[in-house]
Amino acid sequence: MQQFFNPFRRMFFKKMAMGGAVSLGIPRIIQEAYAAGKPAKISLSKDDVILFQGDSITDAGRSKDSSEPNQAKTLGTGYAFMAGSELLFRHPDKNLKVHNKGISGNKVYQLAERWEAEAISLKPNVVSILIGVNDFWHTLTSNYTGTVQTYHNDLDALLKRTKKQLPGVKLIIGEPFAVAGIKAVDAKWYPAFDEYRRAARTLADRHGAVFIPYQTVFDKAQKLAPGVYWTHDGVHPSVAGSRLMAGAWLEAVK
Amino acid sequence: MQQFFNPFRRMFFKKMAMGGAVSLGIPRIIQEAYAAGKPAKISLSKDDVILFQGDSITDAGRSKDSSEPNQAKTLGTGYAFMAGSELLFRHPDKNLKVHNKGISGNKVYQLAERWEAEAISLKPNVVSILIGVNDFWHTLTSNYTGTVQTYHNDLDALLKRTKKQLPGVKLIIGEPFAVAGIKAVDAKWYPAFDEYRRAARTLADRHGAVFIPYQTVFDKAQKLAPGVYWTHDGVHPSVAGSRLMAGAWLEAVK
Repeated sequence: MQQFFNPFRRMFFKKMAMGGAVSLGIPRIIQEAYAAGKPAKISLSKDDVILFQGDSITDAGRSKDSSEPNQAKTLGTGYAFMAGSELLFRHPDKNLKVHNKGISGNKVYQLAERWEAEAISLKPNVVSILIGVNDFWHTLTSNYTGTVQTYHNDLDALLKRTKKQLPGVKLIIGEPFAVAGIKAVDAKWYPAFDEYRRAARTLADRHGAVFIPYQTVFDKAQKLAPGVYWTHDGVHPSVAGSRLMAGAWLEAVK
Repeated sequence: MQQFFNPFRRMFFKKMAMGGAVSLGIPRIIQEAYAAGKPAKISLSKDDVILFQGDSITDAGRSKDSSEPNQAKTLGTGYAFMAGSELLFRHPDKNLKVHNKGISGNKVYQLAERWEAEAISLKPNVVSILIGVNDFWHTLTSNYTGTVQTYHNDLDALLKRTKKQLPGVKLIIGEPFAVAGIKAVDAKWYPAFDEYRRAARTLADRHGAVFIPYQTVFDKAQKLAPGVYWTHDGVHPSVAGSRLMAGAWLEAVK
C-alpha cells in the first residue's frame, strides 16, 4: 500500500513507536494549536519583502538607528529575528528582505500613525502584525480609554488600508496572548482580554490573513513546562517562548 | 515528534516528498559537510549547563553586564543564540542553562587567561569552543607573533585543562573558517590559514570532541548563494550565515 512509501505516514508510525518523550512534544502542540481551521500557507516568492510589525514582543530590543533589512541589530532578539533568520537560511535563492518595525508599547492606533513611513513605504509583499495586548493592558495600567471596539475598528481600518495601498499583499495576523497567573496577568484580565483575541481572529478571517494562534500555542506549551519557562511576566516571551512563537509563525509560510 | 520542527529532518522528508527545490538544499549541504567522518552526537541530559566560548563570532554583540543564562541579551545575536534558543525550545523538560562567554578579538591564549572565571566556574557539562581566526588574522593586522604551533599548543593545553577540571565534560570544537575573496580575506591568508583549521580538527580528534566543520559548511553554502550572503567581510557571518552555523552546530547534539 502506498502509505508504506509515504514519508509522512512513516513518521507517524515512528512517532507511535517511540512514544511520548516530553522533549519531542513541541511540534505536536503547535500542530494541535492549528488543528481547528488551519489556513493555506503563504508562499514566498523571489524578492519578497517581509515586514514584522507590532509592539514590544515584535520589537524585542531592535536598533532604531537603521532601516537595513536582514541585520541582527535591526531585527531584535525575538520571534521576528528567529523566524526571519530561518527564512533567510531556508531560501538563499530568493533574495528576501526581512524588516522588523515593531515598537514597544504600541497599540493599534499607534501603528496606524506610523503606517505610511514604517509599513507602506517599505513596499512589503508580506505584512505580519501582532498587536493588541497593550490595547487591553494599558486600560489597566495607563488610563487608556480605548475599548475592544476601538481595537477592532482601528485594526479593521489598518488592514483595509494596507490591502488598498499594497495590492496583492499577503497578510499574517498574530493572536494577542497572555499567560494567566504570571506577574502582570491577573484576574482583572479576564474575560475582557479574550475579546481582543477574538477580534483579531475575526479580522484575520475577514481580510484573508493567515492567523497565528499564539494563545493556543502558549496554552499548550504549558503542558511541557511551566508558564514562566515561556514568559517571565505573562506578556513578554522568554528565549524559549520566542522560539516557540517563531515555530508557530513559520507554519504560516512555505 | 521533534523532526516536525527540526528543519533538517523536516526538509529531508519534504525533499523526499517534493523533489529537489533549491530552497531545500541547505540541509543536504550540511549533511555533506559531515559526510567524511561524522562523530557520535552529544546527548543532552537534564540540568546540563551548555557553554559557548570563542571570539567575536560567538560574542555577536552579547551584553557583558550579566551572567544570567538563557537570556537574549547575554546570548548575543549569533549562532550561539540561535542554537541555544533551539535547545531551549526542543527540551523544555531538561532545565538547560545556556551561556555565551565569547569575546570579540580573542585568540586562544586570551580564552586561557579567563578560563577559570568564564568557563570552569560555570561548571558546564557541554563546552563548545570556536577559536582561531584571530590567531591567524592578527598576524596580518596587529603584529601578533603567535604561530600555528602556538595556536595548537595553547588549545591543546586548554582542552587538557578543561577535561581535568571538568571530568565527563562533553566538548565541541568548531573549525575556524573564512570565505576567501571577501573583504578582509585575501590571498595572504592561504595556505597559512588552512593549517589552523587542520590543527583544530587534530585536537578535536585527540580530545574526543565533536568537530563542527564550519569551513566545509561555508564552502558548500556558496553553491546556493554568493559568499557575501553568508558573511559580509569573509570572517563574520550574516544572519543567514549565523543560522547556517547554528544548523551545523545542532547536528552535533541530540
